[in-house]
Amino acid sequence: MKCTRCKSKAIVALPSHNAGFCKQCFLKYFENQVQKAIKSKAMFTQDDKILIAISGGKDSLALALQLKSLGYNITGLHVDLDIPNSSEHVREIVKKFCQTFSIPLFIISLKKENLSIPKVKQTLSRPICSACGQIKRYYFNRFALEHGFQVLATGHNLDDEVARLFANTLRWDETYLGSQGPVLKEENGFAKKVKPLYRLTEFETAVFCFLHNINYSTKPCPYSKGASFTFYKKLLDDLEYHQPGRKFNFYETFLKKGKRGFQLLRKSKLTLNSCQKCNYPTTETICGVCRIKKIISSNN
Amino acid sequence: MKCTRCKSKAIVALPSHNAGFCKQCFLKYFENQVQKAIKSKAMFTQDDKILIAISGGKDSLALALQLKSLGYNITGLHVDLDIPNSSEHVREIVKKFCQTFSIPLFIISLKKENLSIPKVKQTLSRPICSACGQIKRYYFNRFALEHGFQVLATGHNLDDEVARLFANTLRWDETYLGSQGPVLKEENGFAKKVKPLYRLTEFETAVFCFLHNINYSTKPCPYSKGASFTFYKKLLDDLEYHQPGRKFNFYETFLKKGKRGFQLLRKSKLTLNSCQKCNYPTTETICGVCRIKKIISSNN
Repeated sequence: MKCTRCKSKAIVALPSHNAGFCKQCFLKYFENQVQKAIKSKAMFTQDDKILIAISGGKDSLALALQLKSLGYNITGLHVDLDIPNSSEHVREIVKKFCQTFSIPLFIISLKKENLSIPKVKQTLSRPICSACGQIKRYYFNRFALEHGFQVLATGHNLDDEVARLFANTLRWDETYLGSQGPVLKEENGFAKKVKPLYRLTEFETAVFCFLHNINYSTKPCPYSKGASFTFYKKLLDDLEYHQPGRKFNFYETFLKKGKRGFQLLRKSKLTLNSCQKCNYPTTETICGVCRIKKIISSNN
Repeated sequence: MKCTRCKSKAIVALPSHNAGFCKQCFLKYFENQVQKAIKSKAMFTQDDKILIAISGGKDSLALALQLKSLGYNITGLHVDLDIPNSSEHVREIVKKFCQTFSIPLFIISLKKENLSIPKVKQTLSRPICSACGQIKRYYFNRFALEHGFQVLATGHNLDDEVARLFANTLRWDETYLGSQGPVLKEENGFAKKVKPLYRLTEFETAVFCFLHNINYSTKPCPYSKGASFTFYKKLLDDLEYHQPGRKFNFYETFLKKGKRGFQLLRKSKLTLNSCQKCNYPTTETICGVCRIKKIISSNN
């Protein structure tokens, strides 16, 4: 197979684009997709201070390196979950990566916050993945706002976004469907959030990391059983195999046509209060994360 | 496995209902699902004259027999497509079925209408399945209106409906999504159309026919290559296997929640004209079926 751009030997095939690329042209393609996402969705500019949520997986590292090499003003934030046989290893990967590419890095230790994920798991009866996600989102958002970042960027890729869209559609959840997208604008108490990799698949971010010889964490979180989300991704891969390009088309058409109806249906905005403990937005009097903290300390 | 209702030996398992049934209880379950569809969606009453589109496949025969045994006033209509090695066999099945169960039957011969499907296939460049569907819908509708039927019932089952919903959702086709459902109300020039089997799967209509010893046509139409629709059904079966009940839930939640947004988005109704040839509704001056007829006769 020959490279679609330069006709030298291709090393990666992308059926969804009816294309194959050599190393250099693949990296150019990757860069173009990221630039296209940033510009077409007005995610940020060269003047913005961008905070990147770095988990240590392929997506967040690919995002950080790509934005860095495009000259954007980026800073990394890693939330250390304090999970045995996992978090220490991941933290070292993130630190080394940021050193190698001269990316300023901040680390928030959930242990220091008295929110170690194993402790949260022990204490709460609800699924740990949802609580862990809530805690991470809280700290990313809080850090972005307290340190003057204009925008928070995450490594969510096309597969993540399509699996989420599919899950929301199966339930016809009009609230989530009315708000899902690669850009969530800044609203009182919430930083602007963007997903510059939404046009690229998991496979493509893995190839990017491989070609840049980036060491990323490949072990799934020991707590994630990954039930329905992993299944949806497999099912959507099957769809993509039969209809190359379908994933992106499903997502992009949703943004252009599907979303509007759900936006019309969205209930009038919830009134947000300031959490009495931390001042961050909540629909209650105390926010979800402060409530978890409270339960944990009263259990000790 | 024991029957969920009467505790005798079960002969059919229905994971989506977390149930298993013996013969009698399965047939009762089937009847209940049909009655529930008819009543909850106000499809028709014992006073209505109901026309049933009978193709000769398991769904239309199951529908006809179930409505007959519930005492509804039904009449069958079969459209003979005139496809070699197929239509004659199917027509005989339909005739024998209607004789056996004393169901009045009308047959429209597309050959006599100069619309033999092989001829249509030869003449038109568009996919034959879409033209054949259009022609059948035209004659069912026309017959229902011209013979004073209050409603036209078709054998579409849950799998058909969910596959269609899935296909429409993948494209976020707001027009189709705003109108899809088990009841299409009567509008100028269009008879009321209902799908009393929409709560039952293909598997369940096959079991119904098997238990009633009904001989139905099992050969797929020689012209249907069945590409994407068949693939979607397989994919949705996979989903149902992992999440029993998901198909029905996806469809029913769409009717309750998803559809509203698309209805809001639907463009203002198209102005319908009366076809200058046949008087039936069209957005043009000559309706689609009369246009096909015209092309065919000018080609002869």
